[in-house]
Amino acid sequence: MKKLEERILTEGRVLDHNILKVDRFLNHQLDVELLSEIGKAFYEMFKEEKITKILTAEVSGIAIATMTGFHFKVPVLFAKKTESLNLDKDTYEGRVYSYTKQKHYKIRVSKSYLHKEDRILIVDDFLANGEAIKGLKEIVDASGATLVAAGVVIEKCFQEGGRKLRENGMDVRALAGIESIENGKIIFKQK
Amino acid sequence: MKKLEERILTEGRVLDHNILKVDRFLNHQLDVELLSEIGKAFYEMFKEEKITKILTAEVSGIAIATMTGFHFKVPVLFAKKTESLNLDKDTYEGRVYSYTKQKHYKIRVSKSYLHKEDRILIVDDFLANGEAIKGLKEIVDASGATLVAAGVVIEKCFQEGGRKLRENGMDVRALAGIESIENGKIIFKQK
Repeated sequence: MKKLEERILTEGRVLDHNILKVDRFLNHQLDVELLSEIGKAFYEMFKEEKITKILTAEVSGIAIATMTGFHFKVPVLFAKKTESLNLDKDTYEGRVYSYTKQKHYKIRVSKSYLHKEDRILIVDDFLANGEAIKGLKEIVDASGATLVAAGVVIEKCFQEGGRKLRENGMDVRALAGIESIENGKIIFKQK
Repeated sequence: MKKLEERILTEGRVLDHNILKVDRFLNHQLDVELLSEIGKAFYEMFKEEKITKILTAEVSGIAIATMTGFHFKVPVLFAKKTESLNLDKDTYEGRVYSYTKQKHYKIRVSKSYLHKEDRILIVDDFLANGEAIKGLKEIVDASGATLVAAGVVIEKCFQEGGRKLRENGMDVRALAGIESIENGKIIFKQK
């Protein structure tokens, strides 16, 4: 997605350790018009797939999933990281390993909102080590629903998450793929 | 907002201690078409106010803020509860008291995204004790921006948050006001 790549180049910031910050438009301040184009791009990719629900994990995926659901005209569901009063006791769970915190945590979706007839599109902001999407897949699998595909806004192709998910048969698409970050310079994957 | 009140009556669930669960359409599973109508309702209320940014707090406010920003065609900003790599070190902070956890926590917004020229509309899903909106107001005040108003989807009018915020001069509007919940029956405030 050309416009997304341009925004990453002009407004993204590269920190140490290959961290790409896109908090100016994607995960702290949100450019809603860009998010709408992102949602529309996912819709164009998967509009023939009879998607019934968009699934993401809190926090950074929620705005993207919302605008994606808007274009698909289907409900959005976000997995919760913490137990809360808003969440039923009876949940499907996925396990996610956090490399920054070096521990596993659980994400949960109420069993009321996932059914075996559902056809699910997972969306998220970043794909790096693939842990969040793996956890979301565990939730979908536990419910018996069909996981159609996963769409991410930015894939760090130099980390192994995307490769591992695809090797396991998942249809994973990225709107922008970053091949490498060298000396602060971002190189996109050629399509 | 008539349609919202109908959805609360048909799909909301009342638990013990006056807890109203609306996780079927507002804060776990999201009905994006309804959220769009909610965003449009806030736009109609404040469209003359030259709003430059929509501000909310993670997690439950994000989808509502996103659809509100979509109608205003302005950026959305969500305050973060946890320190994260996505957040700058230099932040405006607000303090929020959690009655469930019985302790204060901080919410933060990067100083890069709030300026004294900004005219801010705060949005959130619920207004009960008013702590989240108070914390967001502290952030706006610290930045020197103008807090135009706060729009909430559901106000629990039997809790004191709305009254206290209005007594302090804030323009606070709710799309649905709940006067009381008695024996599981929801009574809306008459407009």
